[in-house]
Amino acid sequence: MTTESQLSLVDDLDASVSEVVTDELSLLAASTDRSGSVAAGLPLAVVRAHSVEDVQAAMRVASAHRVPVVPRGAGTGLAGGAVAGTGHLVVDLSAMDRILELDPVDEVAVVEPGVLNARLDAAAAEVGLRYAPDPASAAICSIGGNVATNAGGLRCVKYGVTREAVLGLDVVLADGTLIHTGRRTMKGVAGLDLTALFVGSEGTLGIVVGATLRLKPRPVSTLTASAAYASVAAAARACAEIAAARRLPSMLEFIDRRCLEAVDRFAGTSYSERGDALVIAQADGPAAATEIEAIAAIVGKEATWIEQGVDEESSDRLVEARRQVLPAIEAEGSWFIEDICVPRSRLAEAVDRISEISQRHGVRTYTLAHAGDGNLHPVIGWNPSPDDVPGVMPPAETLAGDEIFALAIELGGTTTGEHGVGRLKRKWLEPEIGADSIDLQHRIKAALDPLGILNPGVGF
Amino acid sequence: MTTESQLSLVDDLDASVSEVVTDELSLLAASTDRSGSVAAGLPLAVVRAHSVEDVQAAMRVASAHRVPVVPRGAGTGLAGGAVAGTGHLVVDLSAMDRILELDPVDEVAVVEPGVLNARLDAAAAEVGLRYAPDPASAAICSIGGNVATNAGGLRCVKYGVTREAVLGLDVVLADGTLIHTGRRTMKGVAGLDLTALFVGSEGTLGIVVGATLRLKPRPVSTLTASAAYASVAAAARACAEIAAARRLPSMLEFIDRRCLEAVDRFAGTSYSERGDALVIAQADGPAAATEIEAIAAIVGKEATWIEQGVDEESSDRLVEARRQVLPAIEAEGSWFIEDICVPRSRLAEAVDRISEISQRHGVRTYTLAHAGDGNLHPVIGWNPSPDDVPGVMPPAETLAGDEIFALAIELGGTTTGEHGVGRLKRKWLEPEIGADSIDLQHRIKAALDPLGILNPGVGF
Repeated sequence: MTTESQLSLVDDLDASVSEVVTDELSLLAASTDRSGSVAAGLPLAVVRAHSVEDVQAAMRVASAHRVPVVPRGAGTGLAGGAVAGTGHLVVDLSAMDRILELDPVDEVAVVEPGVLNARLDAAAAEVGLRYAPDPASAAICSIGGNVATNAGGLRCVKYGVTREAVLGLDVVLADGTLIHTGRRTMKGVAGLDLTALFVGSEGTLGIVVGATLRLKPRPVSTLTASAAYASVAAAARACAEIAAARRLPSMLEFIDRRCLEAVDRFAGTSYSERGDALVIAQADGPAAATEIEAIAAIVGKEATWIEQGVDEESSDRLVEARRQVLPAIEAEGSWFIEDICVPRSRLAEAVDRISEISQRHGVRTYTLAHAGDGNLHPVIGWNPSPDDVPGVMPPAETLAGDEIFALAIELGGTTTGEHGVGRLKRKWLEPEIGADSIDLQHRIKAALDPLGILNPGVGF
Repeated sequence: MTTESQLSLVDDLDASVSEVVTDELSLLAASTDRSGSVAAGLPLAVVRAHSVEDVQAAMRVASAHRVPVVPRGAGTGLAGGAVAGTGHLVVDLSAMDRILELDPVDEVAVVEPGVLNARLDAAAAEVGLRYAPDPASAAICSIGGNVATNAGGLRCVKYGVTREAVLGLDVVLADGTLIHTGRRTMKGVAGLDLTALFVGSEGTLGIVVGATLRLKPRPVSTLTASAAYASVAAAARACAEIAAARRLPSMLEFIDRRCLEAVDRFAGTSYSERGDALVIAQADGPAAATEIEAIAAIVGKEATWIEQGVDEESSDRLVEARRQVLPAIEAEGSWFIEDICVPRSRLAEAVDRISEISQRHGVRTYTLAHAGDGNLHPVIGWNPSPDDVPGVMPPAETLAGDEIFALAIELGGTTTGEHGVGRLKRKWLEPEIGADSIDLQHRIKAALDPLGILNPGVGF
């Protein structure tokens, strides 16, 4: 796009939307996200949407100019789904952050996309409710991004992912049309499930400008048990035994020694002295106390160390090790987080093989997992060097990362459990889901966005 | 279609699939379903599929002949979604009824579409698991049909509907292509959620030939409380109070006096002496005993009668009244079951208005509801007469039925909570979801089925 046509685009936007910015700092910020990936070049402009009409107007202008649009929320994505570069127009939804309605009787919230996950949950808490999906970034990620990626979290082992919490959506299509999907009732099957189609579509089919969400009763009690093990295999066996005993933890996290050592360096703790792997399990609801007892008995069998929370406060303290993992890894240098998910029965095998791959390539890999879902986050870390290309891993790390993706597929799993495909995992999509499925997705995309202007280069 | 081209179609099918039938009895059976609706004329032929290849071959032949195809499972649909008439080819999946895999560790089942819901649940029970979605027709309905309609049931107030239980699907598209959607891991966001798109699509986008399903731990205990009330309003208040106390029953059913009287006539019971409305609540899981105590205390406040199960057996007995409702209504003549869903807070208003509408039109309406979801089933009954057109309600009943649909929309609800749109509720779709949404669905349909041969006249 020439500078002249850029000027014409910005002129048209200026005439139609409430806020357009083109200063370099704003453009730079929009060219990256929390994945660390950086787009080639800077986007043309950022529309800061303050209303649904702003988004509609922006899409009409973008359609008229045939300009690709990158929707953006809080920018906390880990797959490069909101990274905008040369020739892109950014539609930033973060200022649309009102909780429009919170109905304590119907247990429904209606929100704008920029509302932060934790803020909604806190508002729900005031009436004894909870917004269940809790990505680790809950404090800083927004509902729109959660919807775009079908975000998971720690509690989804019991409460399901974002899709299960979304009853309906307001979506602006590529041509500026506003459509409403779904409903505010608990059930409904009138027509195709367009809501689920938009959830997880990473901004490629439309821009979410409103969401009707299902809230759930806040559990009366949440209790934690944590245990350490001499080996990854023993930790995995403990996780498997919880499932085999048909217990349903509300959280079941796995952390390897590499993570624990990073936390120890970061926070001055001594978690890594406890063993080679740590498991943190929670139970919630009216039977939390008896459930956590049963779970503690199971995870205690082979443990080198175990502790059980006696109340909410001591329980919450046991989750601290998990909370510190990502900050601790970030403090050690550059990093790339993978997000593979395997059948739960393959968890131990996956951890072992990741470790073998990392050693073979001389790569530093920290592995944590939502063990109850078989969802592993191997984090590849490296020391930054002046030769680094922003957002690109060095060669050995890239090879190791690729082998881990291939491993996920080999074990009957997926290359992304909850973060999305974004720009960073595209080459793994076809090996995983096949060309026929991708072709079908392109046909659906073409039906909704015939000009192909919505987040091109992201996802399928 | 002329007889000659019909012969040519059947010849081509004979050469490609393992079983084609054209006898009148089979064609008659395929021209109706449990909704009582009857197609105009008889279909051309029925392919009894015995393999995925059969379905692929049938679709290739149907594409070549441009013949519309009606997929059929157990024929228990209540919206006319599987009713085939003149010019239609039926693909009957009921013989594909194998449970291919039941993995007790990963808690996953892989099944063919003809497997009956209750049979899968019984198989899961042998390893301490459960297939959670439980439509009232569980004993006679098949998984393929459950997927096609996104079937609900009594337990979905706690465990979610069919969509939440489906991890992946094998689907034959209109041109005979076989695609695999989803995965067998608990989570996964690689690409668009095609699985959810096919769930509830009523055979209009593809034919489900296999399903990978998530099983859940079977609860250790399930206990029931039942209470009767002097008024519908009091019963609705009790249901609302359970939610307000943030209790999560695993079942919460509402039955009105008209239903109770029908059961009494049918089964010689005396339920209707207890009050004007009956509520049946269940709690399950490790806290079932304390939960049902708390629920019983709530529902007991305004009750004219209350009973609480002391064990599984006495608990199960309290559900008997609910189980008898549909057989009892069927015994009283012709009937049409509606399936509206309203925000839970509007339940009492909905029941009252249904009663007012029925009285005004002099129509007999029995109302039962999955109260925890706000999902009402008003059943309109009438005495069959020689003037009746099969599958069409008499004039007064039609007017009352239409007003009830309109009421659902007025109350912010939907005209179908779990049965589907089928052929019977099509005229209500646009008033409910709007022309833009229907247009979008047609664009998706055209992308997947460009010849428009899959179940035309059904759904959107």
